[in-house]
Formats: sequence, structure tokens, C-alpha cells
Amino acid sequence: MYSNEFSRIEEFFKPLTEGLSGAFSLRDDAAEIDVSDVNKLVVTTDSIVEKVHFLGPEKPSSIARKLLGMNLSDLAAKGATPHSYSLSLCLPKSVDDSWVKDFADGLAYMQKEYGFYLSGGDSVSTEGPIVLTASFIGISGKQGMIPRAAMNVGDDIFVSGTIGDGALGLLAAQGKIDSAYLEDRYYHPQARLGHIPLLEEFATSSMDISDGLLGDMVKLLGGSSLSAKINQEDIPLSEDAREIVSHSPELWEQVLTGGDDYELLFTASRDKREQLLLEAKAKDLHISRIGVVVENLNESILLLDVDGQKVTFDKLSYSHS
Amino acid sequence: MYSNEFSRIEEFFKPLTEGLSGAFSLRDDAAEIDVSDVNKLVVTTDSIVEKVHFLGPEKPSSIARKLLGMNLSDLAAKGATPHSYSLSLCLPKSVDDSWVKDFADGLAYMQKEYGFYLSGGDSVSTEGPIVLTASFIGISGKQGMIPRAAMNVGDDIFVSGTIGDGALGLLAAQGKIDSAYLEDRYYHPQARLGHIPLLEEFATSSMDISDGLLGDMVKLLGGSSLSAKINQEDIPLSEDAREIVSHSPELWEQVLTGGDDYELLFTASRDKREQLLLEAKAKDLHISRIGVVVENLNESILLLDVDGQKVTFDKLSYSHS
Repeated sequence: MYSNEFSRIEEFFKPLTEGLSGAFSLRDDAAEIDVSDVNKLVVTTDSIVEKVHFLGPEKPSSIARKLLGMNLSDLAAKGATPHSYSLSLCLPKSVDDSWVKDFADGLAYMQKEYGFYLSGGDSVSTEGPIVLTASFIGISGKQGMIPRAAMNVGDDIFVSGTIGDGALGLLAAQGKIDSAYLEDRYYHPQARLGHIPLLEEFATSSMDISDGLLGDMVKLLGGSSLSAKINQEDIPLSEDAREIVSHSPELWEQVLTGGDDYELLFTASRDKREQLLLEAKAKDLHISRIGVVVENLNESILLLDVDGQKVTFDKLSYSHS
Repeated sequence: MYSNEFSRIEEFFKPLTEGLSGAFSLRDDAAEIDVSDVNKLVVTTDSIVEKVHFLGPEKPSSIARKLLGMNLSDLAAKGATPHSYSLSLCLPKSVDDSWVKDFADGLAYMQKEYGFYLSGGDSVSTEGPIVLTASFIGISGKQGMIPRAAMNVGDDIFVSGTIGDGALGLLAAQGKIDSAYLEDRYYHPQARLGHIPLLEEFATSSMDISDGLLGDMVKLLGGSSLSAKINQEDIPLSEDAREIVSHSPELWEQVLTGGDDYELLFTASRDKREQLLLEAKAKDLHISRIGVVVENLNESILLLDVDGQKVTFDKLSYSHS
């Protein structure tokens, strides 16, 4: 069934604004957000395109969860709690109501899981692929947004969760390897919002890993004139990923340079290592120390294998283009 | 020439963040916005798609001006001053650097004209048409966003500027009628930000006219159970539009129901009419009283011609779908 834009908004999207009176039930051209008790906002925008960022035939709810997850991951890394988002839907006429309903279900799932509102947006038609854009407003702690490039020599380098699941999960979604766990990790990235208090207290710099650990480590260092020494054996892998790279070690390249991790990458002072690890453990937050910030080397990253030998790759990052 | 995403951002878009330190020169995944002195924000998002909302071959700077103008028009109607925007560019690989440069020049023109910043965004590739999305943050006056549907019986109905220039301008851009003035009005809508103080002081309800005066008047009434009585002869037309409809009266339908006006439509108390008109004149702001809010009639809008006869149209609004 294909209902018109107004009835789609009324039926599928208006319920997503419940609790945010300033959204005016999506009946206005704009939304009002009360920031009288807020000092600093963090804003971030991500767009995804059919055939470029998602395969096309997956469940619309999974596409919705990925779109919001990408944005939430950026907010988490910057130490900001999501407040609301606007959504731009650019859909071909062939997209029917059941697609839109399932997509909205995915949005609702994320809003319930992480606690934020739809504030508004736009809905337009296209003769091309689906294009989806979400713009988030997050509320920052007192110290404001946690930046990149503000680390010091000697800082520890940490990651949350496990690395490479997204890139291996894409291979699983394409049927090239077999792991339901990894496929789910690719479709449904977790947003590490629970780590925000830890980042606020300890992180000297932070970003999320979306284009591969090694390439994003270079971006985190960006402008700091420092380098990162990373021990491959300290990089946390899920059970499924570890099993796969033990049989196919060439897939380490995917693990370290592939996209869609949506884990946190951050630095913290060596002096606070024990306190950080204790607090993470107390809060049941998974973090792993993978290396250390050092004075500028010839290269931005020195990756060492279990024998202390340098590992190299042709390309550090995943690119969609 | 086709440079990569990073050098395009550095060369063409970074300069648009100058003055907004929280944009971190577009080197981070998010931007920080200080709202410690702000009570209420107004957020709005508009997307435009090649072949749907713009023709394709026009100057990229004109496309940029239209995208931002649409959003600014929404903010103006809600009584909010633009602060910053995020931009999502979804571009096919065939779009070269000269296109991007000219597009960025259009953004810069608007930023200079109206005073606001680029805060961030996303840049993605597509195999389909160009899709552009801008999400604005505006700062609201003390009373917050001016709503729809809050008018009272007896309120005057006003519009800013002149009506129908956008719709007739589209015909001019398509070579169907001849008027450089109207063509420019179609490509380069004015954002009526100068009217904000007037709206804040006098408007009981307000929106911008983007889908045709009559259809948008129905939307403005939405939920209020009231009707609008509008006198066709009081609807302000530009000289070129008046000349054209005097020869081709059938084009009145375009004037009253076509899109792309980007003028303000608002209601104000009868008691304050003289004061409102005096202040508008003193500030050199063009407004016209076109009708009055009445008790619920059988139809939402009663449009009367110069002889007091009822005028009807098949369709009240322009639709892109």
C-alpha cells in the first residue's frame, strides 16, 4: 500500500515525537527545543545511501538502526547524550507503506533503547536510490565536546568492545563467511552511550571507529604531531572474529582497516590507568588498552605483532568511494 | 577536476565555518554549540532532489541559495534567527570540483547576507540524482517559536512581499513566459528574516508560504476550526506578475496555488492593525493585509474576487509528488 506523505507522517512518524511537545506532532515546519538548562550542544549529521552504505534488501528496521547507530556513536565518542534528531527521507515511489512502517519500527527501537526523540525533518521523493539523513542534537557535559588530537605523549590508547566485527559482518552478510553473530554486529551496531561518564572523566581525546581502527587512529592523532604504537595481540576480538582470523589470517586486514565498527577509540593519561580500569570494571564497561601515544615516528602508526615485528597494510582505511 | 572528499572539505567548506570555533574546521565528526545564553532553539530541515526540486542545469550557487533560503524562510516564519546549519551532500561522481566550488560560493553568499555558520555535515556518493539536505539551528525569542493554528476570529491575515513570483518564475525558467525578474525570484528566494521583530510583536500564528498561498493558508488554520476569508484584489503581486495575469488570467491559479513563494503568511489581532502597519512602514518592511479569520465556514477558505464572487480551484496546493 502507498499512502500519501501526510498520512505516512501521521501514522508512522508522529508517534516517534511523543514526549517532545516542541515537535508539535510534526504539524509545523520546525521544532522548538528548550535549552534553558543546557550549556553546550553537540550536533552531528550522517547520511546513508542505498547500494553505497547499505545493501538494499536488508530489513528496513536494520537500516534505521544503522542510520541512528552511526550518529549515536559519534555523540557517545564526543561525550554527548542524545536529545533529539531530525530525519530526512528521500524515497523512490516504489517504497511502500510496509517498508516505511518497518523503518519507523527500527527508529522506535533505538529511541526506546537509548532515550531520545524525533523532532522533525523532511520527506521528499526521488527517482534514484534511497538516501537517508539524520541530524542529531546531543547535550554535552560541563567540559564540552571531547576533541580529537588533544592527547599527550605517554597516554594509553583504548578501544571499547571488540574490533573488526562490522567488517567481518559485512562479509557474513554477503555470504562469504558464516557467522550470525558477526552479521548481526554489522546490521545492528551498538552505540556506546554507557561509556560517556568514563570518557568525560578520563579521555584526553576520543572519536568513534567507523572507517577502520588504523585509519581512524591516524585521524585521532590528526594535527597532534604524535604517533601511536599499537600491539596487535592487545586488539580485542570477538570469539567469532578470533576463530575466523585464526583460520584466515589474511582477514586481519579487514579487522584493522575495514569499516562499521562503531566502537570508541580514546586516549587517557597513564597516571590514571588503574583508576580507569577499575571504574570500567565496576560499571561493567568493556574497554581494552591497545597501545600508547609516542613522540612522532616516521609513520603515524607502528603496529607490532606478537613477536614485536612491524605489520604493514597497503591501505589504512575503508572508503565508500 | 575531481579531488577527493577530504580536500574538497578543506578547500571549499572549511572556510564556511570561520567564526564558529566549535566546528573544529570540519576536522571532527561533530560540532559544539554554546547555548549558555539561549533559552529556546528552533530546528528545521529541508532536502532538495535534482529533477524534483531543482531542474539540474541551473547554476550550483543558485541551488545552494535555494536550499538555504527554504530553511531560512521556515526559521523567519517561526521567529527564529539562524545560528548554524549542517549540510549533507549526496553527489554522483560526475559532479566535479567546479560544481562544488560554485555551490560553496552560493552558501557563502547566503551566510554573508544573513549571518550564520556552517557547523558540519556529511558528504556521501550516489549513483542517482543529487540530494542536498540542510538542518538549521535557529535562536528563538523569549516567547519561543511562533506556532500555527493559534489565531482568533477577527484576526487580520497578512503576507510579506509579493505572491506568485516563484510559481510564475518557474514558468519563466522553463521558457514558457518571459521575465528575468520572476526567473530570479524563482532561483533566489529572499528569506524574510528582517520581519522577525514584527512577527514576534504582533503575530498570533505564522508560517512561510512554500506550497502555494491557498493550500498553506489551510495548513496555517490547521486544527483551529476556523476559516479564512481572502480578497483576491488585496493579494500583492509584483509588477511583472500583475502584467502577466492581466494578459493571462488563467495564471491566477499558479499565483495562488503554485510553490516557491517563500513569503510569510501570518495573522495578527485587529486591535493592533494600525500599530503593526505603522511599525512595518517605519522599518520599511513590506506586508499586505489580504483577509480576515472568520468562524468555521463550510470550506476552510473563502476567496472573493473584485466583485465579491467566490473563486474556486481544483487544487489548493502545489505538490512535488
